[in-house]
Amino acid sequence: MVTIKDVASDAGVAVGTVSKVLNGHYVSAENKRKVEESVERLGYQMNYYARGLKTQYTYTVAVIVPDILTPFFACLVYYIEKELYRYGYRTFLCQSMHDAEKDVYYLQLARQNKVDGILGITFNTTELSKAGDIPVVMIDRHLENSICVTSDNFNGGELAAGQLIDRGSRNLLFIRSGSLLSSETLKRGDGFAAACRERKIPCQVLDSGDDAGGYNVEGIYGYLREHMSGGKLEFDGIYTSTDGLGLAVLDQLRRLGIQVPQEVQLIGHDGMRQMNRGAYLLSSIAQPIEAMARAAVENVIHLIRKEPVEELTILPVKFVEGGTTRE
Amino acid sequence: MVTIKDVASDAGVAVGTVSKVLNGHYVSAENKRKVEESVERLGYQMNYYARGLKTQYTYTVAVIVPDILTPFFACLVYYIEKELYRYGYRTFLCQSMHDAEKDVYYLQLARQNKVDGILGITFNTTELSKAGDIPVVMIDRHLENSICVTSDNFNGGELAAGQLIDRGSRNLLFIRSGSLLSSETLKRGDGFAAACRERKIPCQVLDSGDDAGGYNVEGIYGYLREHMSGGKLEFDGIYTSTDGLGLAVLDQLRRLGIQVPQEVQLIGHDGMRQMNRGAYLLSSIAQPIEAMARAAVENVIHLIRKEPVEELTILPVKFVEGGTTRE
Repeated sequence: MVTIKDVASDAGVAVGTVSKVLNGHYVSAENKRKVEESVERLGYQMNYYARGLKTQYTYTVAVIVPDILTPFFACLVYYIEKELYRYGYRTFLCQSMHDAEKDVYYLQLARQNKVDGILGITFNTTELSKAGDIPVVMIDRHLENSICVTSDNFNGGELAAGQLIDRGSRNLLFIRSGSLLSSETLKRGDGFAAACRERKIPCQVLDSGDDAGGYNVEGIYGYLREHMSGGKLEFDGIYTSTDGLGLAVLDQLRRLGIQVPQEVQLIGHDGMRQMNRGAYLLSSIAQPIEAMARAAVENVIHLIRKEPVEELTILPVKFVEGGTTRE
Repeated sequence: MVTIKDVASDAGVAVGTVSKVLNGHYVSAENKRKVEESVERLGYQMNYYARGLKTQYTYTVAVIVPDILTPFFACLVYYIEKELYRYGYRTFLCQSMHDAEKDVYYLQLARQNKVDGILGITFNTTELSKAGDIPVVMIDRHLENSICVTSDNFNGGELAAGQLIDRGSRNLLFIRSGSLLSSETLKRGDGFAAACRERKIPCQVLDSGDDAGGYNVEGIYGYLREHMSGGKLEFDGIYTSTDGLGLAVLDQLRRLGIQVPQEVQLIGHDGMRQMNRGAYLLSSIAQPIEAMARAAVENVIHLIRKEPVEELTILPVKFVEGGTTRE
């Protein structure tokens, strides 16, 4: 069997240089070429299992998200896999499907497999905070014993209120959904309320969320209908805690014959686009998804290498126009 | 260290029964409960790496798709991961990003890691057909030495032509994109052309594809403008090889001031929905994504267990209404 020493000797470089090339770390272009030629010539193949036993590194990270049908999570995993690949790491995809049991199952697998780290968004935060010595980086969930990367949810709410008011809305409504376990969507509402108070604009809150991360469409329809008189809605600006919820609200407004954005302006949160490309689905508060993925991957690699990391990274959000606000 | 024999002895069951429970195979509810209680009581943890060396099984499947930003691929991976989990397998997510080198890299990793199998859609078919003894199931790509699961692309084209004609279109256009390496999108056009010939309806073809799976939006705009006179397009029905392309065509029709579906009807292919839920983005030929994922996973498990499988599985498609065709 061809060993890493045979490759080093054939290429005329140190064993450490071969190891760096195989693990995707930086070496000079010249040495990279020499090593790759020798690997090719000798037909060397790394035995990752043997390596797993020997070094306790698997070069594998488990990425846990509720599901990848939700465009925000698909987009996040898209950037995470790309970025992990750049570092020479592979991605285990784990969809926890809003089912706490599946989170626990994957955490057990992570322990058994000795994956090098866990990255993700999950609704069952209690188990993951017991991950012990497995490097864990959470996105949008700040747990004990873990590192968190998030975007500025409070400022997102402030921005949404500011945009609605600057564009002429005078009676606002915030509709939220998602698990109450996630403190982050709550901050969106807090920022929104704070900005309304500061500008002395009235603001109501409708909680349409359930613990599974869903929302009650008929409940939203009923609430909006109760707040109509003479064919007009009493609110003229609505902010929703996610774009998915925003689209559901847009459907209900249309069902009630209300013109968007002429009568009511609507701002979502996340910044999702049609087919993940092109136009925004709604005017929205866009999260910096690529930057969040990069920061999360960088942090998990630092943790794996036992290097220091920031406990909490908060990245800036911005307002994007998607046709549900006036010019 | 607690072994599987300790668990069997504690639970009062055979070692094989413990193994079945740990691997997610069927045992009686009573035995399952006994084994789980003993695993919990003794704190038993499987060592997957040791198991990998010993049995040559990793209970891991590599899933290769171009990217998961494209809703069709995200939806496919969503169902594949769910289904693999049901069989006790985990999912390595590999996004090849339309980059043939990355396909090769992941295939090498698959060999080195001894993943049990590969499932996927990729544009670099030549390397994967050399996968040797690794069980490979391709979706929408029929390679030598591999098993393929696809939907009925030819019939999809026939259905699209039939629907456009039945709903009043008399001069049709097929616009395709995607790599020419994929014979499957070509079959969509073949079925469309065959149905037009049979119904004696004229039909043009515009190829706007490139090898990277993209399409030339300005080329489509220019082509449509050349085929206009007096503000009217000479075609009154358009079928596109994917929904992504269909949305790009819809944008160009709007830019040219053409009313859809009043003047021109438009049918896409894939059956994607807004945010992967709710309304269809376009009237479309819907692929049975969940059934395709189930069949692909079933086939790869059969291959891993050295059981016989069908070389080619073709699943039925159906027409779905999305507002770009007339009633």
